[in-house]
Amino acid sequence: MTTFSNALTPSDIWADVLAVRTQRPLVHSITNLVVMNYNANFLLAMGASPVMAHAHEEVRDMAAIAQALVLNIGTLEPYWIESMRQALAIAAQRGIKTVLDPVGAGATSYRNQSISALLAQASPSVIRGNASEIMSVAGVAVQTRGVDSGAAVSDALQAARDLAKSTGGVVCVSGEVDHVLDASGRHVSLSNGHEWMTRITGVGCSATALVGAFCAVQPDAWRATVSAMAYLGVVGQVATQQVQAQGLGVGSLQIALLDQLQLLDRVTFESVLKMASSPITA
Amino acid sequence: MTTFSNALTPSDIWADVLAVRTQRPLVHSITNLVVMNYNANFLLAMGASPVMAHAHEEVRDMAAIAQALVLNIGTLEPYWIESMRQALAIAAQRGIKTVLDPVGAGATSYRNQSISALLAQASPSVIRGNASEIMSVAGVAVQTRGVDSGAAVSDALQAARDLAKSTGGVVCVSGEVDHVLDASGRHVSLSNGHEWMTRITGVGCSATALVGAFCAVQPDAWRATVSAMAYLGVVGQVATQQVQAQGLGVGSLQIALLDQLQLLDRVTFESVLKMASSPITA
Amino acid sequence: MTTFSNALTPSDIWADVLAVRTQRPLVHSITNLVVMNYNANFLLAMGASPVMAHAHEEVRDMAAIAQALVLNIGTLEPYWIESMRQALAIAAQRGIKTVLDPVGAGATSYRNQSISALLAQASPSVIRGNASEIMSVAGVAVQTRGVDSGAAVSDALQAARDLAKSTGGVVCVSGEVDHVLDASGRHVSLSNGHEWMTRITGVGCSATALVGAFCAVQPDAWRATVSAMAYLGVVGQVATQQVQAQGLGVGSLQIALLDQLQLLDRVTFESVLKMASSPITA
Repeated sequence: MTTFSNALTPSDIWADVLAVRTQRPLVHSITNLVVMNYNANFLLAMGASPVMAHAHEEVRDMAAIAQALVLNIGTLEPYWIESMRQALAIAAQRGIKTVLDPVGAGATSYRNQSISALLAQASPSVIRGNASEIMSVAGVAVQTRGVDSGAAVSDALQAARDLAKSTGGVVCVSGEVDHVLDASGRHVSLSNGHEWMTRITGVGCSATALVGAFCAVQPDAWRATVSAMAYLGVVGQVATQQVQAQGLGVGSLQIALLDQLQLLDRVTFESVLKMASSPITA
Repeated sequence: MTTFSNALTPSDIWADVLAVRTQRPLVHSITNLVVMNYNANFLLAMGASPVMAHAHEEVRDMAAIAQALVLNIGTLEPYWIESMRQALAIAAQRGIKTVLDPVGAGATSYRNQSISALLAQASPSVIRGNASEIMSVAGVAVQTRGVDSGAAVSDALQAARDLAKSTGGVVCVSGEVDHVLDASGRHVSLSNGHEWMTRITGVGCSATALVGAFCAVQPDAWRATVSAMAYLGVVGQVATQQVQAQGLGVGSLQIALLDQLQLLDRVTFESVLKMASSPITA
Repeated sequence: MTTFSNALTPSDIWADVLAVRTQRPLVHSITNLVVMNYNANFLLAMGASPVMAHAHEEVRDMAAIAQALVLNIGTLEPYWIESMRQALAIAAQRGIKTVLDPVGAGATSYRNQSISALLAQASPSVIRGNASEIMSVAGVAVQTRGVDSGAAVSDALQAARDLAKSTGGVVCVSGEVDHVLDASGRHVSLSNGHEWMTRITGVGCSATALVGAFCAVQPDAWRATVSAMAYLGVVGQVATQQVQAQGLGVGSLQIALLDQLQLLDRVTFESVLKMASSPITA
């Protein structure tokens, strides 16, 4: 069994960024109808190669040539959930990394059933969602939107730790602070980004796609997730500052995010990054 | 029965703009595949919260937690029309506002049948379309594209009045001048906007989504529709002027519209707005 | 039988550009879920009128009123392939031009079967793809991604010539150099564009849509294809230079392409265009 390091430096993350840019991994995404275009452009701006295919006649063949698989249930239908299940089965069999974005978990019982069906097929390498989604997937009842309050964040982290243990994989809880943790107790928190990123549809979904791209080139899924979320957080913060300095808004931010994904340099990245190890006292 | 005012001032409209920005209403959209992403970004830039869900397994659950429902038949299929019908039934039962965009009405008989099926389920609070679409929904045969000529506009307005009476709701005929009228005879015309807005896919559909967001916070559906269309018209005019002053085109306008939806201030809004009451002589 | 000219000048191409801008042809696109929005905006920026409809209940009616039909199998499903087949039958019957983009040909056997099913219905007026897609459609086995190497380009051109002969139509092989050839042996190569255009999803698909718009106004499908590809190549090169001069990236390029599609002037076009006749020695 491979043992991965617990320590992670900005240099490590930058090495992963360069690996995506140079290796151009093929990422198979089965995602929602709203964000497909932006997800694909996110991956391309980052240097990865997106492929989107969901027909039952070919979804296994496509999963068989990809370097990572990303599943997103945003606009789920029975046909698409079955596509995801089939792709997940092939990916698990091949040993490529799989990333699940449980969009809207908890909003309807059909979403919860669909997530259960996917988890029953295979445990994803990474699950990324906001606090209420992660709590819902972990089986914790969520009542209100106010889940980002202090008390709720600690509830969400406990749910995330439980979920990581039950799946044996990585869990990322994103929000004002992003937390990335795994079954072995590794935990990093990231404090970049900007609230405006939530005013563009598909940035969360595209973060998940980015995690897939990093997982395709970095065998440690926890490190890959930290690297993807760290990079996107800095990209988002730098892009928002640029846009606001010009008196522009969230439309321009949508474009600036893509530009910075492609162009951000190492010096800026390392000077802006805010990363902290969060020791877990379970 | 609530009685609403016939008079409407720029201050009233601005109050509605602020209500959307601060209350962030959840707008359930079942819309077409082409404009989903832009619609969602439109609503987010405006401050609203879009949710898009259409599976028969959850569409009723989602309609049950939304503050408004928006239906758009642009890339209709039987499955999606049935989703819309189910959502419309729940929305009507709950008393939340519903907005219908009959995209391409009159272009094929299947579109006309689908619109009839939706209207048979429940009358939408608001129907928004261009002159030929509104005429088609109202049962007036439309022959040519040249429906925006002077004579045809008066035909379209008569059709809109008839449609408002038969549905008991609000009808918005958009074009170079936007007309918003209701069954009680209230009628406002708005003369902002710019022809370039028709060179971006989904601006009309996004106008409809915006009407949904305003209807979620303003109980008078006629006023909500006027406010949404007035705001978008000014946003579009200001954004086009900015883009043209920089020598840029309709690609940049797509982004500038989102920026202005988010950032437009009251002074600019009130100074640019062109609104007139149009007394109806039936 | 109409005879078309073998010679083609920058003035001829510019005349076609103006024809699209002024005639605003209605282009019926049945395309993939990822690029629908960008395709529609591409056509609108160019001055054409896109319509997207795929329901079996109306797809024939829509094909019956369009001036050109564009088919793209990017996110194919059996239902959508059947939509394409029905639309293709109507278009062939009416004699309007049809353009096929065999996205991902060769990647899965289902894609190959679907392409065969479409070709069995009717030969498209134009097929546009990259080298490996064209080779796959022509029945040449493709093994690697490295198909753009010198030797492989000559293989792809031979495959394109064979395909043009078997379909009796036009074939466009796009890449660093675009080749447009037909069954009669006409062949032009175009050397504009920029590598960054491959970092935006849907530019290839939108090129195909553009070919459809030009085919709607120019009866010689080979000339229409050359004109569309030449115009887009110059647009892309000019837009990339502008974006790079401002230190911006591929996100901004996505928007600048739309701006230039709308605004590019004749003097710039003719000064940047790199077109060469490539005599074929078969």
